[in-house]
This record gives sequence, C-alpha cells and structure tokens, in this order.
Amino acid sequence: MNIAIIGIGLIGGSIGIRLKETKFCEKIIGVEKSEANQKKALQLGLVDECLPLTEAVASAKIIVLTVPVDAILKLLPEILDQVTDQVVIDMGSTKTNILKLIADHPKRGRYVAAHPMAGTEYSGPEAAVANLFTDKMMVYVEAFRSDEDAFELADALTDQLEMKTSFMNADEHDMHTAYVSHISHLTSFALALTVLEKEKSQGRIFELAGSGFQSTVRLAKSSPDMWTPIFKQNRTNVLEVLEEHIHQLQKLYSKLENEDYEGLHKLIKKSNKIKRIIK
Amino acid sequence: MNIAIIGIGLIGGSIGIRLKETKFCEKIIGVEKSEANQKKALQLGLVDECLPLTEAVASAKIIVLTVPVDAILKLLPEILDQVTDQVVIDMGSTKTNILKLIADHPKRGRYVAAHPMAGTEYSGPEAAVANLFTDKMMVYVEAFRSDEDAFELADALTDQLEMKTSFMNADEHDMHTAYVSHISHLTSFALALTVLEKEKSQGRIFELAGSGFQSTVRLAKSSPDMWTPIFKQNRTNVLEVLEEHIHQLQKLYSKLENEDYEGLHKLIKKSNKIKRIIK
Repeated sequence: MNIAIIGIGLIGGSIGIRLKETKFCEKIIGVEKSEANQKKALQLGLVDECLPLTEAVASAKIIVLTVPVDAILKLLPEILDQVTDQVVIDMGSTKTNILKLIADHPKRGRYVAAHPMAGTEYSGPEAAVANLFTDKMMVYVEAFRSDEDAFELADALTDQLEMKTSFMNADEHDMHTAYVSHISHLTSFALALTVLEKEKSQGRIFELAGSGFQSTVRLAKSSPDMWTPIFKQNRTNVLEVLEEHIHQLQKLYSKLENEDYEGLHKLIKKSNKIKRIIK
Repeated sequence: MNIAIIGIGLIGGSIGIRLKETKFCEKIIGVEKSEANQKKALQLGLVDECLPLTEAVASAKIIVLTVPVDAILKLLPEILDQVTDQVVIDMGSTKTNILKLIADHPKRGRYVAAHPMAGTEYSGPEAAVANLFTDKMMVYVEAFRSDEDAFELADALTDQLEMKTSFMNADEHDMHTAYVSHISHLTSFALALTVLEKEKSQGRIFELAGSGFQSTVRLAKSSPDMWTPIFKQNRTNVLEVLEEHIHQLQKLYSKLENEDYEGLHKLIKKSNKIKRIIK
C-alpha cells in the first residue's frame, strides 16, 4: 500500500517520518507545489518520491491532505472526483465549511475528516519531527458519514502515530478549537505586536524577557499562510472567543484602574482553577 | 558568614538550595511566618534553621528579602533600621515605590535593589529548585546608590546563582517588566477565565487543549498573593501595556470582523518579527 501526503510541511512531513519508521506502507509519495520544499522533503527522507497530484492520487491507497484549510477547500472536491476505493483524510484545523462543501459528493464515504491536536510554532519540511503526534489527540469529525472500511484504515494510520482519539460533530469541533487553540494564537500575535511596538521607543525592552514571556509569545512565530485561512474558516467562533477574551482583559483592567485589589485578587484566584485542567 | 532569607518560597527556597550547594556561606537562616512552610523548608533542606526576623537580621551578613512586593514595602524600612554593616537585598518585581520609600533612609547605602528574571508558575517551598537562576538575568536597579562593598557582596551572591546581570533605573525597570513579564501573566489569567467560563456550557471544552494552549495559559496558575501586589505597585505601567494589548486584540478582531484577510495576514506577519527576539 502507498500513501500520498499532499503538502509536506510540519504535519505532512511528521506523518511521513513516523510512517517510514513503523513501515506502515510500501511507499510514501509527496505532493508539494514548492520545488524547494520537494527537494528538502526528499533530502530529509520525509517522503520516498514526489509526484504530481493526479498521479499520486492514482497510485496511493490513502491520501492525506495536510495543506492550509483554504487549500483543502479547493483540493478536496477535486481529489474526491478522482477517487475509486481510496481513502482521503484531511488534517485541517476547521471542519464546518469543508464538511458542508463535500456533504453531497458521490464519494463522501471515502473521506474521513480528522484533526490532530498537535503542532509547533514552526512550519515547513524542516520542522517535521517523528514524535509530533505521540499521545496527542486525533479528533474525528462526523466519522459516521465515512464508509466503515475507510474509517478503519484512517484509524489504523492514527494508531501508527500513537494518538488518542475523540469524536465530535463539526460545530462542536470548530467551537472547541476556537477556545483552546485559535485564541491562544491570537493572544500571542497581539502580545508580540504590543511589545514590538514598544521596542521602537524603548530599544532594550526585550532584555528582561524571561521564560514566562517566551511561553506566552512563542505561538506568534506561527505562519500567517496557515493561520489566516483558519481564522477565515472559523470566523464566527473566533470572533466570539476573541470578544470574550477582550472582555476578560477589560475586567482585569477596570479592577486595576479602580484600585479594586480585592476584586483583582478574586479574578486571579478564579483563573487559578485552570490547575484542574493543565498539569 | 550567615545569610538570612526572608520568605522561603519559590525564589527564597531556590536561593537557599543553590547557596548550600556552592557553600557560599556558613549558615542559611530562614524567616517565614507560616509554620507549615517553616517545617517544609527545613525538611526540604532549603535553610539550616528558622529564626524570628530580628534575630535573623542580627546574625546574618546578607539579608535577602523574597516576600511579595507589598510585604517588602513594609519590612524593608524596619530591617534597615536594625542594620549596622549588613547588606540587604530585595528580589521584588517592582522597584519605583520601594526605592522612593527608603531613598532618604540613613542606611540606604546598605541596600541593593535586585530583580531576578526567573521564576515558574508555582509557589511555596516545594516549588524551589537549585537551577532556577542559571543563565537568567539579574537586574540591579539604581545600583549607584548602594555602598560599593554592599553592591560587591550582592553581586558575589548573584555570581553564585550563575546569573547574567543588567543595570537600570527604577522607571525603566518597572516599565520593561510590565511589557515582558506582568502583561504575560494578565493575558494568561484572562485566557483561563475565558475558557473556564465556556466550560460551564460546554463541558468537554478542554478535551482538545494541546501544547499551544498550555503554553499560553500556564502562567494562570500563578499566585494571586504574589501578583496582586505587583499589579498594584506597577499600576500605571501595567494599565498602559494592558490598554495597548487590548488595542492590538481589537485590531485583529476588526480585521476579522470586516473580512480584511489581507490586513489580518499582514498583522500576523508583523508579529512574526518576534522570531528575532526569542529562539
């Protein structure tokens, strides 16, 4: 069995390395429009060969889509048009629009919507690492709409990545990721912009930056080509959580402005409940 | 030479462990109002003995103040009143008010204002670790106001902690820490509150939380007893940076609301410049 990976960046490349380790398939075929990235992917051994999309789809049993979500919207219907008994899996961070788009496609059953809750702030083939997915969560969205054998094969691939699994509907998935992934990126982007702005008048501003700052700002290194389409596709949910986050910051602001230190202490103590959730 | 550490939590305890490792002094005397923390500090070997404040000050050559900044404001003048040739160092996260308070104290020269840019989201004696300070920055504030021998001894202690050093005036220090430390905590507190609020209606909301979310929210585990006084003491700077941060979030909001994806892409790309600063 061959596997085609469409888009060999952080996610696609990491799947490639891992599946080569576990010998899950005979050949890993990469599809990548950037020639520079094709070369890097071959050099780094992320894929065995690179082919044009149509040839890759024809010669693979599983087709994994790991391009940005706007490119998934464009490519998925085209790929499903070419599919006979293959399985197509996408790894996009938003699902509602994608699932709506192919809801009535004659090959809908061959498609499995998945989202690995794994990643780093880096992108491109060089960012790929074999253990990116270990113990992370793979979310299946509307899995009941996939053919049973298609889902089983997708899940076998997830097993190879040593991931846990979870099932959701599309609305739920997109709202949840807005709250525990997309907003984290927006706060990081905004924090970076805030301090970079200050650097113009205060050259030494980053001199005292320690691990706390790094932790909250590291996601601001994330690719605009990947994230702009995510925010676009998940616009309604992202606007909701962003509004609520700004509201919470304004509450903290107003406690401090009004010197209500008891109220500020209470809010901080309430936020400490996050200890229940994260180690 | 004995060293007295006033407040044996994350910072005080970590100094204690490290100085015992390097045999910098004969005895480390802890001063700690909580009896439970006294016991823990002795059990964990962070200090050699615990004494009341006055006795500790009398029998130590260096007195290190590692209590929250509001307690420093209360204790520092009292301690300076009792000092002859000892050196008093505070490790507080804000400096302007502290330095104003003791500016005209007859023993001003025996005091060194320092701030180690090191810490974790944990607090209390159990949080102490020997290598907390390694390669981190110790900021000296208005060091020129300290007696030369007092500064030299404080700097020898900093050497034992294997820290880099930086010099600033109080205004500069408090503004810089607002931008690269205090704001990171506020965004984390607000982010935790945002998602905890959503959990009430969406029980599974944390199921998909991955490393990105953890990274941006981990500071929300920080102690309100430590952070409320910091925000109080650095109120003007913190309000300034918080206002700017909310403004940057509102800019991202408005680009998304108006479906200006080119503008959104530009802002994200601009924020990527943080790569120059953090690894």
